[in-house]
Amino acid sequence: MPAPIEFSVTASDGDARNGRLVTGHGEIATPAFMPVGTRAAVKAMAPDELWDMGYRLVLANAYHLALRPGAELVRDLGGVASFMGFRGAVLTDSGGFQAMSLAKINSIDDDGIRFRSHLDGSLLMLTPESAVEIQQQLGSDIMMALDECTPYPAEHGRALKSLDLTARWAERCHAARTSTTQALFGIVQGGVYPDLRKRSADQITAIPFDGYAVGGLSVGEPKPAMLEMAALSVSMLPRDKPRYLMGVGTPADLLAAIAMGFDMFDCVLPTRNARNGSAFTSAGPISIKQAAHARDRRPLDPACDCRPCRDHSRAYLRHLFMSGEILAARALTEHNLHFYANLMKGAQAAIASRNFSSYAKDVSAGWPVNESA
Amino acid sequence: MPAPIEFSVTASDGDARNGRLVTGHGEIATPAFMPVGTRAAVKAMAPDELWDMGYRLVLANAYHLALRPGAELVRDLGGVASFMGFRGAVLTDSGGFQAMSLAKINSIDDDGIRFRSHLDGSLLMLTPESAVEIQQQLGSDIMMALDECTPYPAEHGRALKSLDLTARWAERCHAARTSTTQALFGIVQGGVYPDLRKRSADQITAIPFDGYAVGGLSVGEPKPAMLEMAALSVSMLPRDKPRYLMGVGTPADLLAAIAMGFDMFDCVLPTRNARNGSAFTSAGPISIKQAAHARDRRPLDPACDCRPCRDHSRAYLRHLFMSGEILAARALTEHNLHFYANLMKGAQAAIASRNFSSYAKDVSAGWPVNESA
Repeated sequence: MPAPIEFSVTASDGDARNGRLVTGHGEIATPAFMPVGTRAAVKAMAPDELWDMGYRLVLANAYHLALRPGAELVRDLGGVASFMGFRGAVLTDSGGFQAMSLAKINSIDDDGIRFRSHLDGSLLMLTPESAVEIQQQLGSDIMMALDECTPYPAEHGRALKSLDLTARWAERCHAARTSTTQALFGIVQGGVYPDLRKRSADQITAIPFDGYAVGGLSVGEPKPAMLEMAALSVSMLPRDKPRYLMGVGTPADLLAAIAMGFDMFDCVLPTRNARNGSAFTSAGPISIKQAAHARDRRPLDPACDCRPCRDHSRAYLRHLFMSGEILAARALTEHNLHFYANLMKGAQAAIASRNFSSYAKDVSAGWPVNESA
Repeated sequence: MPAPIEFSVTASDGDARNGRLVTGHGEIATPAFMPVGTRAAVKAMAPDELWDMGYRLVLANAYHLALRPGAELVRDLGGVASFMGFRGAVLTDSGGFQAMSLAKINSIDDDGIRFRSHLDGSLLMLTPESAVEIQQQLGSDIMMALDECTPYPAEHGRALKSLDLTARWAERCHAARTSTTQALFGIVQGGVYPDLRKRSADQITAIPFDGYAVGGLSVGEPKPAMLEMAALSVSMLPRDKPRYLMGVGTPADLLAAIAMGFDMFDCVLPTRNARNGSAFTSAGPISIKQAAHARDRRPLDPACDCRPCRDHSRAYLRHLFMSGEILAARALTEHNLHFYANLMKGAQAAIASRNFSSYAKDVSAGWPVNESA
């Protein structure tokens, strides 16, 4: 039986590496950033615009899609990629994080997560088995095992209990998977404790998943702790499988994580910040709301060749944002996703020429230290 | 001194006619529908998308732009077309309608309209002279004279007083215009009274405007009255100048008005209805909210070749709309504007082949009687 995905490392520079990830919906060059398309839509963007920017893999959310329009409906309409009109591949998260954070009432035990829908209050249960079944119905190319995302702060005992539960759920997810065309990734937890990160990595990598993710980071812990736990975790993951750092992050975080050997990333920053009026640029982030931009004829980023930077001045974009025009969200989202796509393309080129550390240094030279401010 | 615009009739079929309108920002083939870009943006659309659909002239609103970001700012940034990144031409309305309808407090007398800004409550005054000055600063290709849009219902005496005021303001607007590159159109009022429509047309056409508009229709009067007043009014306008029916209308209204000899139109229907989930199709309007579309794999209109119809099923668009995704507004707006653009292209082709009445009959055969429902 062929594996649902193939992964091979095509170049490396230190721990950083380029990879080729082959799915049923095409190939993805890694390191790859996945735009977040929670409800089978990357907010404000058309699917062919994502494709044209070079995105070949986007993330969608199993919790949201299971509630509306329903996983069976998405299955009947050809699976999530076809449903959303995207020519590339889709990764779905398990829905566990949203069931815990968005649902009105929830409780968690060995069985799974009991919660009430944030849409209609109906009582629902997410188990490792149902999380896999939902994702199989959604037809994503990469499914994620149900995990408990350990919150921050969490005491050592709480984090230990959480990762052990995640490991038991991971076994059940792996056993429940029946699809031969959809990959399934396991998730390492462990909070900010090195011994627990090691324990979780040992447990999860003992299960023959198609790829491995590091979760429970960028949930409020200090940046040095995030970077330390990410580096420690990735060092314990198999080198021949894709390695995914969940929920990270800023451009500087991505460069740091690529240097550690991560291959895949997702984050709401480029899309959510865009809707809040913040743009990533080669000189660091700018807030389009600021009065300083009211008469500024320059584009968001003079070094950028995206459509909004070709067509619009900062003055016009500020006017759109202050007026609540949808085009403001569109333009800043397109620009930010273009910025992230180019950051990844630049990283891939630098790794191929064994030049990654000077690329990372050069590209971030103009950024302030905390570039997500 | 050359005229700010040139207009020539290039073909005719009965009273219907094709024209060529040449502005400082390019040529417009008429009959032409103008998408409404109130705040220098057609809601949810990028300017190059409008251009690619064939739109060469859009409408922007002087009241809104004067309040935010300010007419001087738009002037300093190169005028409204350049400000919004649109390669074509822009017509601005005078702002009078919005000053009367949106402002918090207003009063009207011979001097002009006193009102409070709906944004910050500041006390402002719009006069014929300031309406022209604002539009000259905005740098639109076609400016509209300040008029009083007679409400419906209005008694004969009230409508008479209103049109006489409009005529005095029209004289002052014409006298106030100093730009040699921007056209100025006068507006015929007169409510639903044939004698007053004639009186107003006599007054307004006595002033050598660059084009003539018919206003005060589609403000609540019965459809037969609208069509009767439009037909009567257009018959009294010079044939060698562009003739603009303001605020109209549905696809059937446009076909009827083209048959009367109107050249230009604007209406919020295709864009506003889109954001409310309503799409114009070759078989009449559909509401994407309806549960009947939940599993419908068909595009909005199987006869349409717009991007949303190529990429998306009704099921997906319904999901986007129910989820409040921006992409729903984008997709339906793009589809509806594509529908209106094609309706105009079809009308032009039919007039050129002296086949307009059978075109109008064929294209509307599938529509319900009240196709704006």
